[in-house]
Amino acid sequence: MTAGKLFVVSAPSGAGKTTLLKRVMAKIPGLSFSVSHTTRSPRPGEKNGIDYHFITQAEFLEMIDHGLFLEHAVVHGNLYGTSQAAIDRQRMAGVDVILDIDVQGASIVRRSRQLEATHIFISPPSLRELEKRLRGRGTESEEMIALRLANARSELQAVNEYEYLVINDQLEETIDLLSSIIVAERARAHRFPSGQPIGDIITS
Amino acid sequence: MTAGKLFVVSAPSGAGKTTLLKRVMAKIPGLSFSVSHTTRSPRPGEKNGIDYHFITQAEFLEMIDHGLFLEHAVVHGNLYGTSQAAIDRQRMAGVDVILDIDVQGASIVRRSRQLEATHIFISPPSLRELEKRLRGRGTESEEMIALRLANARSELQAVNEYEYLVINDQLEETIDLLSSIIVAERARAHRFPSGQPIGDIITS
Repeated sequence: MTAGKLFVVSAPSGAGKTTLLKRVMAKIPGLSFSVSHTTRSPRPGEKNGIDYHFITQAEFLEMIDHGLFLEHAVVHGNLYGTSQAAIDRQRMAGVDVILDIDVQGASIVRRSRQLEATHIFISPPSLRELEKRLRGRGTESEEMIALRLANARSELQAVNEYEYLVINDQLEETIDLLSSIIVAERARAHRFPSGQPIGDIITS
Repeated sequence: MTAGKLFVVSAPSGAGKTTLLKRVMAKIPGLSFSVSHTTRSPRPGEKNGIDYHFITQAEFLEMIDHGLFLEHAVVHGNLYGTSQAAIDRQRMAGVDVILDIDVQGASIVRRSRQLEATHIFISPPSLRELEKRLRGRGTESEEMIALRLANARSELQAVNEYEYLVINDQLEETIDLLSSIIVAERARAHRFPSGQPIGDIITS
């Protein structure tokens, strides 16, 4: 079995990444999110090892000490982290894994060079459209909208560090494009055993 | 306008490349074959500059002398060649160009390093299946089938020099895959003006 590929996906808040990824994963078989570690308690229906790896704070801190997290963060007093071993386990099962992390996290992954990954940036079609979408949510204060726009402006500077830029204008078209990127990456010739002539594989 | 991309596509004889490319070009807008130069006479309906650049043998030989061909060959006494300038003209019009050349021609293009291109290899699912398809044509002698199989075996060794390997098992699936590769390549971030922050482009 070939090991699964890793896709690092980043987007400014409001670019529509969450909806987009859910739709793409429903469409393409053999694709799943990376499973994060967290110190928060499981919610009803959440399964350990599927939704999250639920661990204690002591265990989490020990993992940090051992450098096992690619990246980690505190959210509402709980710890969340992405471990390389968790990603490796999914990939070894032949599943392609999507790592949904921000521009800074993606930059750390690229610099670490331990993980070969395809880096994809999801962008809103314009900052004006992004502002419209953020206002459309009806839940964000003026200060929060201004902050998110400033963050987006800064994150968009990082796009040249990504291999693919997906501009999310029309959702259905964007779903097709992101799906195409994943399907195309699966056909990359270096995924096939190198050295061993493909002719030997095809000869059957 | 962004210049069109170049796709170099190679396949062993009998892999189904011709049908596949025709179907993909009918499906994807803004994609066309490179226009070759030839010394043969136009057939009824063929247009100069569209089907071929029709030139005299003296002109063709002069172009060879000036090193204007990426590759050229003699077929049934007529000369055929692919000129870099012809490809550039199509690309400057914003059209993505498919260069349908064999493994040796593709290798020359890669070594010349003058043309940035995406290299795609179309393979039959197996040599046994290739043999079946060649026999299915009903037009090939035993000697010709043996020769084509030997060539295929040799060409398959070159697959690791290609970026993508497309195994043509089920035609409709293969059309989707090749289309996905072309669409995905159009979303490559380095196609967007580098240096200039994409934020400035998206800011509108």
